[in-house]
Amino acid sequence: MPSPSRSTTGPTDAVDQTGATIAQIAELAGVSIATVSKVVNGRAEVAPETRALVETIIREHGYRRQKKRNRATLVELVIHEFEGAYAMEVIKGIERVASEHELAVVLTELHGKHTPGRTWIDGVLTRKPAGVVTVFSGPTPAQQEQLAARGIPFVLVDPMDDPGHDFPSVGTSNWSGGLSATRHLLELGHRRIAAITGPAHALSSRARLDGYRAALDAAGVPVDPRLIREGNFRVEDGLTHGRDLLRLDDPPTAVFAFNDGEAFGVYQAAYEAGLRIPQDLSVVGFDNLPPAQWSTPGLTTVHQPLSDMAAAATRMIIALSQGEPLAQHRLMLTTELVIRASTAAPR
Amino acid sequence: MPSPSRSTTGPTDAVDQTGATIAQIAELAGVSIATVSKVVNGRAEVAPETRALVETIIREHGYRRQKKRNRATLVELVIHEFEGAYAMEVIKGIERVASEHELAVVLTELHGKHTPGRTWIDGVLTRKPAGVVTVFSGPTPAQQEQLAARGIPFVLVDPMDDPGHDFPSVGTSNWSGGLSATRHLLELGHRRIAAITGPAHALSSRARLDGYRAALDAAGVPVDPRLIREGNFRVEDGLTHGRDLLRLDDPPTAVFAFNDGEAFGVYQAAYEAGLRIPQDLSVVGFDNLPPAQWSTPGLTTVHQPLSDMAAAATRMIIALSQGEPLAQHRLMLTTELVIRASTAAPR
Repeated sequence: MPSPSRSTTGPTDAVDQTGATIAQIAELAGVSIATVSKVVNGRAEVAPETRALVETIIREHGYRRQKKRNRATLVELVIHEFEGAYAMEVIKGIERVASEHELAVVLTELHGKHTPGRTWIDGVLTRKPAGVVTVFSGPTPAQQEQLAARGIPFVLVDPMDDPGHDFPSVGTSNWSGGLSATRHLLELGHRRIAAITGPAHALSSRARLDGYRAALDAAGVPVDPRLIREGNFRVEDGLTHGRDLLRLDDPPTAVFAFNDGEAFGVYQAAYEAGLRIPQDLSVVGFDNLPPAQWSTPGLTTVHQPLSDMAAAATRMIIALSQGEPLAQHRLMLTTELVIRASTAAPR
Repeated sequence: MPSPSRSTTGPTDAVDQTGATIAQIAELAGVSIATVSKVVNGRAEVAPETRALVETIIREHGYRRQKKRNRATLVELVIHEFEGAYAMEVIKGIERVASEHELAVVLTELHGKHTPGRTWIDGVLTRKPAGVVTVFSGPTPAQQEQLAARGIPFVLVDPMDDPGHDFPSVGTSNWSGGLSATRHLLELGHRRIAAITGPAHALSSRARLDGYRAALDAAGVPVDPRLIREGNFRVEDGLTHGRDLLRLDDPPTAVFAFNDGEAFGVYQAAYEAGLRIPQDLSVVGFDNLPPAQWSTPGLTTVHQPLSDMAAAATRMIIALSQGEPLAQHRLMLTTELVIRASTAAPR
């Protein structure tokens, strides 16, 4: 891939690995390195006389492109699937930071799988991005080696499993989120609180479930295994399990769904059963994606800062690609309960 | 950008513009061109003995990479903004076709603007994608010239304005959609039907509004200008205008919102006013994005095949990048009314 400094009309075409460095040119011209960079990259925001001066010096001395310079114009996002508002939040977070650094974002969807395939790694090695952000998925050990060999960093967001300290990752406080959602329902007076989880293999779901159990234990409320149902983070799971739970002889008065999509499935199950939310059934979600705000009633949910998590991962990628050390390899952003209109005291 | 056939470990490194063509190698080996392509591209799905045979022939005869071959590994998407499920449908449609052709998707968001900036065109010219799909936006005339000069095709999806026949485009039957939504409400017995539109400069919104008027005219129902409100395709617009409309002395009994987001804003306004949907107020949306299906009540809406539109545009890009003629420059996919639970006869 050509360096971004190889403008098709700029002064750098004729000169390459010989000549003055960007720092020497900056000193000769009495301008900042950033200004020289703007001139050689053909950017507009340089005064004409400054541009002329820098170009004259480059003509006289030549311009040696820096070898260690980050030449990437892309950052890659790998995500398990494009369903729902979750993926859009992630994309927005990456795009925000990438566009600040004039990087374009390349998307790869795994169509529900959790490791990318052969075509993907071939493409990444060809494209030489600044780095790779993988969401709810990760490269295989072989792919990790290939990326490492080319110096292409990757950062895991919302990792499927405990990533250890080998790989930089950005997560969120899922356990605390599960605790605070359940505690909120307990404080309202609920005792029969169902949980519709994510897939058992997802660490984020396990942590939320442990938080749910911890809140019940702390309140002295026994955990009823019939009220815990495994979902797969889909609206349909909330609908199916919601129908089932509401048909129990001793149905729950509240449901903690482990993502907003499942919570909306519970909304639908309640609607079908002629139950009003929150008067007849309280519902709490997890994620606080945009639809949570404009559902009727507005969804009480645990805010997971997905967009900020993706943005933080992108900043880590950019730092790593420029050879800078990371302040921390495992970044943990906090969750926060957002109380709206879907929860109330039981009748 | 290196050709994808330049595998770093494959047998093609030593040979380049001389030697046998892929067709000649296929004939000599008695295999298909696709099989030879797999071998030179280092793909796994070839039997070991076949691979050995093809590699032997390549060693003996050399391998001439095809000049006319499409070497792009990327296709670019430019979209006005990432808000809501609209963008996700578009991304899914592009990704579906791109991944079939082993192309990665590069995203650019215009943050609400409708023409991309300088950084974008520089990046595109550097990345040399197979082509560019622009959604609810389009390149400036100068950018169009730069793309044309490099042979990078672009296709407009859901164009802001009438694109004429100069540029390939994919649209949908907005007028018919507006007509069928309004006719559905008329057939239920509604006479006071409000419309919350999109921005006046958007051709799609204008076409829907014309369809709305046509349906009212055909039914002999006078158009009441107080019932037509201009929105900007946001939930907030539906909420604000919905509140306003429901406070009229003679409020509407039905609202046709020009996208699903606005319709959900009307849901919220009705909820605030203590009105039930559909008993007290009927609501029709436009788009039929995934949330329409799991809202309570399910939203009656006009299905706009956004994902298919984006997929069709991507197929057009791939055809153009391979020098194939297009069957049609302006493709129009049809809309269809999907009746769910948000519409009923007025009381």
